[in-house]
Amino acid sequence: MAAEEEQGFRPLDEASLLAYIKATPALASRLGGGGSLDSIEIKEVGDGNLNFVYIVQSEAGAIVVKQVRVRPTLTPTGPLRSASLSFLTLTAPRSGGKRNTQALPYVRCVGDSWPMTRERAYFEASTLREHGRLCPEHTPEVYHFDRTLSLMGMRYIEPPHIILRKGLVAGVEYPLLADHMSDYMAKTLFFTSLLYNNTTDHKNGVAKYSANVEMCRLTEQVVFSDPYRVSKFNRWTSPYLDKDAEAVREDDELKLEVAGLKSMFIERAQALIHGDLHTGSIMVTEGSTQVIDPEFGFYGPMGFDIGAFLGNLILAYYAQNGHADQANDRKAYKKWILKTIEESWNLFQKKFVELWNKHKESNGEAYLPDIYNKPKLLSVVQKKYMTNLFHDSLGFGSAKMIRRIVGIAHVEDLESIKDASKRAECERAALNCAKTILKGRHQFETIEQVVEHIQSFDQD
Amino acid sequence: MAAEEEQGFRPLDEASLLAYIKATPALASRLGGGGSLDSIEIKEVGDGNLNFVYIVQSEAGAIVVKQVRVRPTLTPTGPLRSASLSFLTLTAPRSGGKRNTQALPYVRCVGDSWPMTRERAYFEASTLREHGRLCPEHTPEVYHFDRTLSLMGMRYIEPPHIILRKGLVAGVEYPLLADHMSDYMAKTLFFTSLLYNNTTDHKNGVAKYSANVEMCRLTEQVVFSDPYRVSKFNRWTSPYLDKDAEAVREDDELKLEVAGLKSMFIERAQALIHGDLHTGSIMVTEGSTQVIDPEFGFYGPMGFDIGAFLGNLILAYYAQNGHADQANDRKAYKKWILKTIEESWNLFQKKFVELWNKHKESNGEAYLPDIYNKPKLLSVVQKKYMTNLFHDSLGFGSAKMIRRIVGIAHVEDLESIKDASKRAECERAALNCAKTILKGRHQFETIEQVVEHIQSFDQD
Repeated sequence: MAAEEEQGFRPLDEASLLAYIKATPALASRLGGGGSLDSIEIKEVGDGNLNFVYIVQSEAGAIVVKQVRVRPTLTPTGPLRSASLSFLTLTAPRSGGKRNTQALPYVRCVGDSWPMTRERAYFEASTLREHGRLCPEHTPEVYHFDRTLSLMGMRYIEPPHIILRKGLVAGVEYPLLADHMSDYMAKTLFFTSLLYNNTTDHKNGVAKYSANVEMCRLTEQVVFSDPYRVSKFNRWTSPYLDKDAEAVREDDELKLEVAGLKSMFIERAQALIHGDLHTGSIMVTEGSTQVIDPEFGFYGPMGFDIGAFLGNLILAYYAQNGHADQANDRKAYKKWILKTIEESWNLFQKKFVELWNKHKESNGEAYLPDIYNKPKLLSVVQKKYMTNLFHDSLGFGSAKMIRRIVGIAHVEDLESIKDASKRAECERAALNCAKTILKGRHQFETIEQVVEHIQSFDQD
Repeated sequence: MAAEEEQGFRPLDEASLLAYIKATPALASRLGGGGSLDSIEIKEVGDGNLNFVYIVQSEAGAIVVKQVRVRPTLTPTGPLRSASLSFLTLTAPRSGGKRNTQALPYVRCVGDSWPMTRERAYFEASTLREHGRLCPEHTPEVYHFDRTLSLMGMRYIEPPHIILRKGLVAGVEYPLLADHMSDYMAKTLFFTSLLYNNTTDHKNGVAKYSANVEMCRLTEQVVFSDPYRVSKFNRWTSPYLDKDAEAVREDDELKLEVAGLKSMFIERAQALIHGDLHTGSIMVTEGSTQVIDPEFGFYGPMGFDIGAFLGNLILAYYAQNGHADQANDRKAYKKWILKTIEESWNLFQKKFVELWNKHKESNGEAYLPDIYNKPKLLSVVQKKYMTNLFHDSLGFGSAKMIRRIVGIAHVEDLESIKDASKRAECERAALNCAKTILKGRHQFETIEQVVEHIQSFDQD
């Protein structure tokens, strides 16, 4: 870190931030400029301890400023705050669960040294800008990025936006969620793939984001490795799931499949993916959906994004039995989640293929027009492509479910179920569902079949 | 090009090369240094018009100096020279074949502008050095590389080394070829993959070689695109193969499969591959095998290298009927080629898995020891990996065969058959074999089955 600090980095406090904003037209103008700047109020809202996040408001406007925290204050004993701009949805060990005295916050999980370089802010800003260009409706605007300070000024995603995961825990329906997310995924993935781009642009992007390697390594460890071995960072609802966690570690068929997904995650530069597209990276109101926090952005397999979203919806589904009470049995809500899963994939598929058809005369290197633009052939090609993408998505989605149950970082959907026995029941159903999907994903032809499969594991 | 020249590049002639060598200790020392330098003789041997290649000899030693030719002298009408250090094995239109007045040398095939930047020399030198570190037995040593001048000094691969392809045309057996090539492929591919390396090193390599994009684009066009569409650069033995070439362009199943291979070629950074490992990139004597010209080196799918080598051996096999005469019916030689194909894969597989077992405790990110080092699981994992690699190799190998028959660049093995009707017969057999392997590659379990398949298309 010393070396980084020498390179001009300095953490800003409220006073220096105020001066910085006044001196930076791209930020000052968003707050009205001139006299409006005298009315600025700065509120630090935190961000799971990994970033400084400030809401900056004047009489004329509001922005968010986010700066990487170089020396995070580790809080090994208390739950980490889950802020609106959370880096990851973190949940610390809770009562009723297995308490591992060695447990440290997520951020420490890849060793003693701080694993995530300041440069993650650069990749976050770059991905936000690129995705924002392709899908401005669902990506917050970046007003300013300062690489030296690892500091970004961006749109303030105002109330009543909340993190989608919190809405799912509360049982709130978002009627446009599938429509919006399918839009976001179709546009960001299609337009950064070889279906649209030529090889030169593609390889430029691959080279640039290859440097976001620390974030990729973190994913590799916590998603594809730790859940399948004894690791001091793993935890689960003990003692209920002790045997289940052990079974994951002993399941050779599962490990064989996970290895294939891990290699695909590292080797396959299919599109500029968000890299962490769970329900904690999405802010929503009834009519708005905003995707945030692409600090893990890189050229990877599309299915990793689609799977993250779908997998986290499935986790939300299995958590509902733990949230049901006399006032609300959550049955209708579970149906809504399943419908959202179904529509998210089906709409994604439809929009993605529509983009493909619309741009079939483009520079995309993968399927050149003079070879593939015959109606029947193109349709066969698209069917094969979408089937592969569907199976990739199911694989990655399942892997992400598994790691949220027996790995280091859990999800609030399940963690907030206070009764450990009840929680374990929900988790076991989710785990068994995920294991079977992961192993049998090539058998699924439609998302409706997957939804049926999900329901079959529901203990309700 | 003007911009490049401004960056300090200047083509050397024999006089300036002599001065350069004397002023460059890494080269002068190879020629004995001191008084020995007075005895230097320089012979330009050419290189298919794409590079200046000089053999530099003194009384004390010899080296080869290769410099990129920035403004190649295009010779659209005459056959390009096939030199010992050929950039690619080029063969111009010949009598008996289809003469297309629009035909231009290979090097012009991607448009009017010179497609290959001088930087290809950098990637050639880098790949030679990296592969040389991993497999010095079969990689010529690089003594010196000057990036400004795109100039490399390297081992002089002395007579009686000849280009393997010429030996195959002449009917010469190389008893150690399979052993040597399997060694080269196993070492260079294993040690540059995630089976051995961690993600950080891997992504560093990927980023570096992503800049060799012009060479990748050339491959994409001539291997995966042009043969499947009408292109003025395509040619074939006309009129005999007119229908066959058309059938390739109309074969939707084939095009579907080729699209998958093309995407894999661009997207999948599996290992640092040679990128052009045909039999014209290999120099041999009875006891020595040296792999040259990795100007196409980048992180791509391993099967592309293995397939290039095997596919070109299969082409050599089908060419033999055209070389048979009363003095030599080539039957024994054909058996040797088939045996070499068989042994190359089987030895490769054996050595690759041996390296894997030997280094199973290494830093390789793909299969972490504490998850996969259980004898039964590791063996299942390896079997799956090798099966996938086998199918990839068959796919890429077939694609490379097809393009050598109906695409722009043909192979001397077939081109040197003077009787066009006879040549077309050999080519048709090779083409039909390749098409069926490409489409049905997942059905093959062993290389012996492939060899049987090859023989079944032999018209002899």
